[in-house]
Amino acid sequence: MIKVSVLYPNTAGCKFDMHYYVNQHMPMVQQKLGAACKRMAVEEGIAGGAPGAPPTYVAMGHLYFDSTYAFQTAFAPHAQAIMADIPNYTNTQPTIQISEVKM
Amino acid sequence: MIKVSVLYPNTAGCKFDMHYYVNQHMPMVQQKLGAACKRMAVEEGIAGGAPGAPPTYVAMGHLYFDSTYAFQTAFAPHAQAIMADIPNYTNTQPTIQISEVKM
Repeated sequence: MIKVSVLYPNTAGCKFDMHYYVNQHMPMVQQKLGAACKRMAVEEGIAGGAPGAPPTYVAMGHLYFDSTYAFQTAFAPHAQAIMADIPNYTNTQPTIQISEVKM
Repeated sequence: MIKVSVLYPNTAGCKFDMHYYVNQHMPMVQQKLGAACKRMAVEEGIAGGAPGAPPTYVAMGHLYFDSTYAFQTAFAPHAQAIMADIPNYTNTQPTIQISEVKM
C-alpha cells in the first residue's frame, strides 16, 4: 500500500479553507480517482512539537493506493481538473510525498 | 481525535533503520503510552511529487490520541526514554506536528 501525502506549508499569510477542502475538494478527488483510491485522510495542523510552536503544515491530505502505478494511472487523466481546484481553498504551494505504508 | 506526526527529514547523509523503528521503537512507544495511544502508523518515503524527485521525509511515524491533553499526559512520563531511543535508528532531527483529524 502506498500513501500520497499533500502537505500545505504554514507560511506567513497562508489561507486554507478546511470546510471547502473536506466537503468539496476531497469528495471530488475521490469521485475522479474511483476505486483505485482506497482511503483518504485529512488533518488540520494545530501545533508544533515545542510548547507554543506553530504547526509546520496548516493542513495535510492523504490518499492511499495499492501501488504508485495505481496512483499514477488513476491520477493522470484528472490531474488538471484536480490541480485547478487548489486555488479555491488555498494560496499555498503544497509539498507532495509518496510513501510506502510499513505499519 | 488528534494525530502526532514525527517527520524525519531526508537530509544528505541521513540514516534510518526502518526495521528497528517498526519492530523495536514503535512497539516500545505503544507499550509506554498504553491505551491513550489509539493507533499508530509508519511510512517510508519513496518519492516526491515531481518525476524523479526525492521524498521530503525519509520516514514518518504517527500516533493517534483522543486529545492533545491525552497525548501530553501519556507522553510526559516517558518522554526521556522514548527520545533516548532515537539515535538507535536515525541520525536525523525529526519535525513534530500535532494535527486535528478532520476526515
